[in-house]
Amino acid sequence: MRIAVDAMGGENAPGEIIAGALQWTKETSSNIILVGREMVIKEELSRFTYDPARVEIVNASEVIGMEESPALAFRRKKDASIVVATKLVKEKRADGLISCGSTGAQMAAAIFILGRIEGVDRPPLISALPNSSGSFTFLMDLGANVDCKASQLVQFAFLGNAYARLFLEADDPRVALLSNGTEETKGNAVTLEAHDLLTRQKNINFIGNIEGRDIFADEADVVVCDGFVGNIVLKTIEGMAAFISAASWKETGKIPAYFQQLDYTRIGGAPLLGVEGISIVCHGSSGREAVYNGMKIAEKSKQDNIIEAQKQSLNLMDSQE
Amino acid sequence: MRIAVDAMGGENAPGEIIAGALQWTKETSSNIILVGREMVIKEELSRFTYDPARVEIVNASEVIGMEESPALAFRRKKDASIVVATKLVKEKRADGLISCGSTGAQMAAAIFILGRIEGVDRPPLISALPNSSGSFTFLMDLGANVDCKASQLVQFAFLGNAYARLFLEADDPRVALLSNGTEETKGNAVTLEAHDLLTRQKNINFIGNIEGRDIFADEADVVVCDGFVGNIVLKTIEGMAAFISAASWKETGKIPAYFQQLDYTRIGGAPLLGVEGISIVCHGSSGREAVYNGMKIAEKSKQDNIIEAQKQSLNLMDSQE
Repeated sequence: MRIAVDAMGGENAPGEIIAGALQWTKETSSNIILVGREMVIKEELSRFTYDPARVEIVNASEVIGMEESPALAFRRKKDASIVVATKLVKEKRADGLISCGSTGAQMAAAIFILGRIEGVDRPPLISALPNSSGSFTFLMDLGANVDCKASQLVQFAFLGNAYARLFLEADDPRVALLSNGTEETKGNAVTLEAHDLLTRQKNINFIGNIEGRDIFADEADVVVCDGFVGNIVLKTIEGMAAFISAASWKETGKIPAYFQQLDYTRIGGAPLLGVEGISIVCHGSSGREAVYNGMKIAEKSKQDNIIEAQKQSLNLMDSQE
Repeated sequence: MRIAVDAMGGENAPGEIIAGALQWTKETSSNIILVGREMVIKEELSRFTYDPARVEIVNASEVIGMEESPALAFRRKKDASIVVATKLVKEKRADGLISCGSTGAQMAAAIFILGRIEGVDRPPLISALPNSSGSFTFLMDLGANVDCKASQLVQFAFLGNAYARLFLEADDPRVALLSNGTEETKGNAVTLEAHDLLTRQKNINFIGNIEGRDIFADEADVVVCDGFVGNIVLKTIEGMAAFISAASWKETGKIPAYFQQLDYTRIGGAPLLGVEGISIVCHGSSGREAVYNGMKIAEKSKQDNIIEAQKQSLNLMDSQE
């Protein structure tokens, strides 16, 4: 297996990115392709001991910054590291890629270079949150698509269904809509319509609406919402975790061990679903541990053949016409 | 001062509601009017010692349940406790009311009996969240209005501005929109439009967008969103608090003291803004302490003349035509 790594993306690039990717090669028999400015990568690599036969470098002269307009930057910077890394996946020179850079640019590259899976309007981001059973609950979309149609939320549900099936090893994952009440009469206009559409779908275990408080209560395996809501929820959780760990530190002089459950570095990355290739989005502030865990997600996605699983799930979706 | 109390609303009615209200009378020179089934209230009161001159009972033969359609129940149950309590405020026999019952019914009663303040399309709910500075950040709307127009979010901003001014004793509260990024280009369609409208308002300290993680970071005094998003955020916080306190209990055998900061009973209630009278919405599972704190919010709202403050703030809103 070969995973392409956007060595230039993220706040801690390239050092921590390369460190995390190298660590992964040491624990697998797989190879990495580091994509970015060759001189910079070579200099960084000189600090590590590694097997050169397992590490390839592909030069990319440009980088897309977090502050740039993703669509514009994608069109202008043909030699950006995320563009080159995505092309490696398209050309089957890599089995997947990970990046800690601009999510929008990564998404644009995935849509225009890899292409969308048939039946998918927009590719959603999905990530795992810990729950009270000691397992995980998947939340999607996490910010890639702010205004969604009901039919798009239905597509998300089928994509998330495939993902949870593999990662939770669940036969028939419980799929829910995130709403302001559990009753089917609760929700904004799009959620109400999506509820109606999902109720009519036969080949998905749609359990109805859940509320924000149920995300942590293991009430569902996949929680579907638009990217505006999902992004706000995820960042609220992040902010609250920071708030509580600071309060805990002040009170007890330590961070409780259970906080590790909320540490995004343990999760590593959010796969971009609905596209014809494996593209793992990592947090912009990822350090080596998060990158290492992101590599493991890319590896597992390939081993489990997540693309094929998504296509099979979408094939079971009844027409929404 | 006289505060009307919906003695029949909420999971712990009437016992805990009456207990919390009586406690408040003992610490003030004010009176309460308990509204509900007279026989039930009298029997409950017989368990307490109190000054009968300070406690009035007004009979209401019906109760609106949490499972009923608020609009329908409001029209059919003319003698429901929340309807009778709201009429007491309208008739100036009470200075405000609190209820732990159906939020939708309380809102319908407020709109149709008290009426909306001029310039307000929809009354929002506002509540305080703790922040990292040891102060509070106000979040609104919390679920009363799921699909909002941009102009309604602007109205919320001016109402929240008035509330934060009084409760935080801030001269010029920082008002922000909750979005999926801080940049003005981030947001769903309604948020983008509201951002544009608020930027053009001269008489409000609009600081732009904030993200979910900034809610706890004291980045703004008032955080505005629609009721769908606000409800999901508030309940996510609630669910995460329950998740963490259970994990803490398992790890250390105790709930950390800082958790009290996240305990909604300390806040007590969320005022319904934008209506011509004081109506405090309390959590359905409120116990006596939450009710007591809800009474204090009603009291402070009256003392500070929150209705007049909202009108003054709305007068400073430039026309959105």
